Amino acid sequence: MTVRAAVAGASGYAGGEVLRLLLGHPGVEIGALTGFSNAGQRFGSLQPHLLPLADRVLEPTTAEVLAGHDVVFLALPHGQSAAVAEQLGDEVLVVDMGADFRLKDSADWETFYGSAHAGTWPYGLPELPGARAALEGSRRIAVPGCYPTAVSLALFPAYANGLVDTDAVIVAATGTSGAGKALKPHLLGSEVMGSMSPYGVGGGHRHTPEMIQNLSGVAGERISVSFTPTLAPMARGILATCSAKAKPGVTAETVRAAYEKAFADEAFVHLLPEGQWPATASVYGSNAVQIQVAYDQAAHRVIAISAIDNLTKGTAGGAVQSMNIALGLPEATGLSTTGVAP
Amino acid sequence: MTVRAAVAGASGYAGGEVLRLLLGHPGVEIGALTGFSNAGQRFGSLQPHLLPLADRVLEPTTAEVLAGHDVVFLALPHGQSAAVAEQLGDEVLVVDMGADFRLKDSADWETFYGSAHAGTWPYGLPELPGARAALEGSRRIAVPGCYPTAVSLALFPAYANGLVDTDAVIVAATGTSGAGKALKPHLLGSEVMGSMSPYGVGGGHRHTPEMIQNLSGVAGERISVSFTPTLAPMARGILATCSAKAKPGVTAETVRAAYEKAFADEAFVHLLPEGQWPATASVYGSNAVQIQVAYDQAAHRVIAISAIDNLTKGTAGGAVQSMNIALGLPEATGLSTTGVAP
Amino acid sequence: MTVRAAVAGASGYAGGEVLRLLLGHPGVEIGALTGFSNAGQRFGSLQPHLLPLADRVLEPTTAEVLAGHDVVFLALPHGQSAAVAEQLGDEVLVVDMGADFRLKDSADWETFYGSAHAGTWPYGLPELPGARAALEGSRRIAVPGCYPTAVSLALFPAYANGLVDTDAVIVAATGTSGAGKALKPHLLGSEVMGSMSPYGVGGGHRHTPEMIQNLSGVAGERISVSFTPTLAPMARGILATCSAKAKPGVTAETVRAAYEKAFADEAFVHLLPEGQWPATASVYGSNAVQIQVAYDQAAHRVIAISAIDNLTKGTAGGAVQSMNIALGLPEATGLSTTGVAP
Amino acid sequence: MTVRAAVAGASGYAGGEVLRLLLGHPGVEIGALTGFSNAGQRFGSLQPHLLPLADRVLEPTTAEVLAGHDVVFLALPHGQSAAVAEQLGDEVLVVDMGADFRLKDSADWETFYGSAHAGTWPYGLPELPGARAALEGSRRIAVPGCYPTAVSLALFPAYANGLVDTDAVIVAATGTSGAGKALKPHLLGSEVMGSMSPYGVGGGHRHTPEMIQNLSGVAGERISVSFTPTLAPMARGILATCSAKAKPGVTAETVRAAYEKAFADEAFVHLLPEGQWPATASVYGSNAVQIQVAYDQAAHRVIAISAIDNLTKGTAGGAVQSMNIALGLPEATGLSTTGVAP
Repeated sequence: MTVRAAVAGASGYAGGEVLRLLLGHPGVEIGALTGFSNAGQRFGSLQPHLLPLADRVLEPTTAEVLAGHDVVFLALPHGQSAAVAEQLGDEVLVVDMGADFRLKDSADWETFYGSAHAGTWPYGLPELPGARAALEGSRRIAVPGCYPTAVSLALFPAYANGLVDTDAVIVAATGTSGAGKALKPHLLGSEVMGSMSPYGVGGGHRHTPEMIQNLSGVAGERISVSFTPTLAPMARGILATCSAKAKPGVTAETVRAAYEKAFADEAFVHLLPEGQWPATASVYGSNAVQIQVAYDQAAHRVIAISAIDNLTKGTAGGAVQSMNIALGLPEATGLSTTGVAP
Repeated sequence: MTVRAAVAGASGYAGGEVLRLLLGHPGVEIGALTGFSNAGQRFGSLQPHLLPLADRVLEPTTAEVLAGHDVVFLALPHGQSAAVAEQLGDEVLVVDMGADFRLKDSADWETFYGSAHAGTWPYGLPELPGARAALEGSRRIAVPGCYPTAVSLALFPAYANGLVDTDAVIVAATGTSGAGKALKPHLLGSEVMGSMSPYGVGGGHRHTPEMIQNLSGVAGERISVSFTPTLAPMARGILATCSAKAKPGVTAETVRAAYEKAFADEAFVHLLPEGQWPATASVYGSNAVQIQVAYDQAAHRVIAISAIDNLTKGTAGGAVQSMNIALGLPEATGLSTTGVAP
Repeated sequence: MTVRAAVAGASGYAGGEVLRLLLGHPGVEIGALTGFSNAGQRFGSLQPHLLPLADRVLEPTTAEVLAGHDVVFLALPHGQSAAVAEQLGDEVLVVDMGADFRLKDSADWETFYGSAHAGTWPYGLPELPGARAALEGSRRIAVPGCYPTAVSLALFPAYANGLVDTDAVIVAATGTSGAGKALKPHLLGSEVMGSMSPYGVGGGHRHTPEMIQNLSGVAGERISVSFTPTLAPMARGILATCSAKAKPGVTAETVRAAYEKAFADEAFVHLLPEGQWPATASVYGSNAVQIQVAYDQAAHRVIAISAIDNLTKGTAGGAVQSMNIALGLPEATGLSTTGVAP
Repeated sequence: MTVRAAVAGASGYAGGEVLRLLLGHPGVEIGALTGFSNAGQRFGSLQPHLLPLADRVLEPTTAEVLAGHDVVFLALPHGQSAAVAEQLGDEVLVVDMGADFRLKDSADWETFYGSAHAGTWPYGLPELPGARAALEGSRRIAVPGCYPTAVSLALFPAYANGLVDTDAVIVAATGTSGAGKALKPHLLGSEVMGSMSPYGVGGGHRHTPEMIQNLSGVAGERISVSFTPTLAPMARGILATCSAKAKPGVTAETVRAAYEKAFADEAFVHLLPEGQWPATASVYGSNAVQIQVAYDQAAHRVIAISAIDNLTKGTAGGAVQSMNIALGLPEATGLSTTGVAP
């Protein structure tokens, strides 16, 4: 079986990454590549690293162009996915790599995104308890945000096992591709090289309610999240340092056991041996997640740290993994746990 | 008045940085440059960026070589400063850029450094309440660690004003020069470029007791510190993200007011206008500290973030600033708040 | 058909890269991983990006361990391959990623490598005229140096078509992984980030005679090569800027035509459309070569520029490509022309 | 004596760098800071590394605002300097960091810049034979381009002493700040980190005629320049690799002697000892030039390599150095040869 996949928003970083993965997917044939302002351009000038597609031409993002595909990946600005998805039939698998269908709470959506809530689709983080079942056979998938992917995987075992209190503190560093190809002064190479800087401090980042939703769902009670994202001088990768106060009776052993059990059967999540810590370079270009956890006896905190590639497991790899589940393919088809390092 | 200064450990990063600053200091003449394994080598091959010293030769670190200087900067491996300092007269100003004389608690020293405690010298972080008085006229200075500099400045106004609870959570990113010139595989350029990784997680980093000492001293009660350092793909800079739970009644306004008051008269600490966040690039090569603070109403936390150059304000700049105070010079002599950017 | 492959020197960068590629090769089963000082260690601590091999243990590099494999990749220090190869039977395909069997001229070998010449094996640069035939069915392969790969591909069409004179001038920038995992001060992250520097200037680099050999072979006369390598602040990639004086009558059109013809049937060499220039990021982690060529009318020079990943096409990818040819597999098996970007 | 200096174009990289230097210049008081689209903004939000100027406000670039200064630095887009300069009196020292007044040949100007030629001003590269005399007392200075600075200093001793033929081949790598703050996709951090790429290949770069002008002036005959610029993953620095065929009779000794003589009295040009090579990190933020030269006996070429900071010696440092000469100040006032490294 081969499915035919289109990518809307193919000239951006998320669109390019899903194409990179689909080029190596044995069950997918790449159909239309669409965009907005760049439509009509040779694809090789827009995504010069995707040599097998260099002679393609970017088409406009219209229902006509996207029609006739089995799968459509949407890599669109926030708020634009619903209009496109509506024009595609229910039999088409629509994988939205934007934020539009992630949140269940309309008020959260409106507060953080400032527009009307489009709805909620099955959530494409298969490792989250309960997520896989909702993805099987689905024809709509909401791919998680990159930060919520890293954070939810790092912390859900602690909350699923009642190891920590409800106040999670998260500081994460991301590579600049997380900000997309937008032409903004602070994203210039001259500005980012040699510099670390925070943004969206104090609860303002749009991924905060998504983390709260995921962790609260696992914990069975409302989790508070203090989230500080920082921009690091690298193109790819997220390192998420997540901690919360340990509940009485928690020990290093109970923490370790909970994490080992949580990921024992997961192909993409690698709990590192004790003493070894994640590095974003180790998962560069791969769908793997590296996780390590520690119990700080003096500070009474559990610290869980995860490393992902924000474009792969954090966006396009998670999208392909979820597509595989929805289509009934082996979950790891076309995906790798081998990073490109050094 | 011109003082004559020697630098022991001149071929390392801390030694090189203090020399870079002293070359621009109008009241200092540079005397002996000493080292261990590199003694006898032309200095230009060891520190090629210090062109005015290129034709000097590195001498061995002995009492004879160091004798006859007014100031001696020690940039030695931990545990070696006491033996050298003992051989220098009480009239010589000895500025230790190592850890040996920072901690007051011998048990902390022995736990974290594994050797006998050498003692405690006046602490070279002038902006910390009470520190300046102890430095005036002193002939011994213990320069703070780079992380404690960034963290203590970011958090002390919150503790001095009773704004937050006793559990501080800190995640900091450092440039690789913080690890020194040691030849370790994980410090190779191929490994660090494009990668973020944590180390010393769970309370093990040696700078933790120093942070606890500083913050507890300001708060008047024992502060708990959860500290996670991470290595960032840049040569210089520390970005410290520090937070703690706000006490009841705290508002964004009380927080802002406390920070404005704390730094109103400080030449090197720049509290940014609301809405602007620190970036390590902005303090590159300068003795400035950029700080911003926010109150996260949903998570009930105060988040204070500081950016310093780990080698300048975090080590050699702090050393020169403290030397100025000890010698009765204007505190900012030879120091700059202008970063080298972009 | 599945062949069993061992990698000697598996803990280094070349060894790690060939394993990364073999993990995705449908016709290869990975056998022994061997090393020297690291033997006995868990492989996951040595190459943490190769998650599928994390639980393997590095074995010592001995004839016993390497016996019983169909293919053995050698990623050893220069001068050590011959002794290992001799102990392997003639039926074993030995792919040497070191320099030992590249040069035909014993005097060149001795001048540049300072030891006795081991011999010459079929040269693993299939795109070089005549090279493919020598590789078919061979059981010994000498993988080219990374710089000679980039330079020979960029310049051979000019020499094969008599477009330029015999004095080639080459300046190339390499990522730091080209220098291997050796612990040398100038390779520390603190030293390489933010810095460009040359080395081996003036004809001293060991890859110079290999370039001369390749280009002279194509030209049918002795080519002179002025080669300046430079170290760039990136982990991977080579950008080679190669030029020579154009012969009378040469035009932009004749140059373009020669290059189009040379690479028309090559799967891995991508001559870019006019106006687009290579970037090492575009071939990151891929076996592709991006080439562009220009004729500078004012300076009467042909300038050819190539970009490769030094570890992939420049080392391990070239090795796997040549292995495929030797084994009679489709040449592109297990190899990709899709770069990991941005 | 204190002069009052204004900077037009103060929000860009060249403008910011000249302000960084002027803040440390004992004879200069900083007057108006002007710009175009950013006029009215707080300067601290535009150049956050210039803390002493943080509370200034950017004014519009008009004759009224610039009037009443002793020195005006112009950091404007090409073609805009003449109109501004005309409105300033002859007694005002106007230092143009743009290209408008560098070239003597109007045809060259029109070919490469596409507008009418504004004229020629004394050329601000004091180390070039004859340049210093023209700068003394001048009230108009044309600051050289960054590449021509690096290249002319590396090659003029070879041409002044008749050591090489007339065909110079130059490949240079620049940091991204050389491209300014313009918002272009290829300058995004995600694109430049980890990547080397050429541009303006084949003779098209605007700095080419300036190099030809400088080298021809020294040689006394027309020099041909093949110039290939490349973009490196760093914010600052130029490494220029320059070579030409040696004339008969030239030896390593004659080459070395010519370079030693050329720079013996130059404060900012540091000819490295034999065996040591330049690195851009060594001159980071400084006005120093590191140069090394080699004679490749096999290829019969002289290779001269220079490293500068493109923003300092390559732009703003050269501007301040030339200003000092014009004003009769010691040439090195406010300038340093100490790089910020590592």
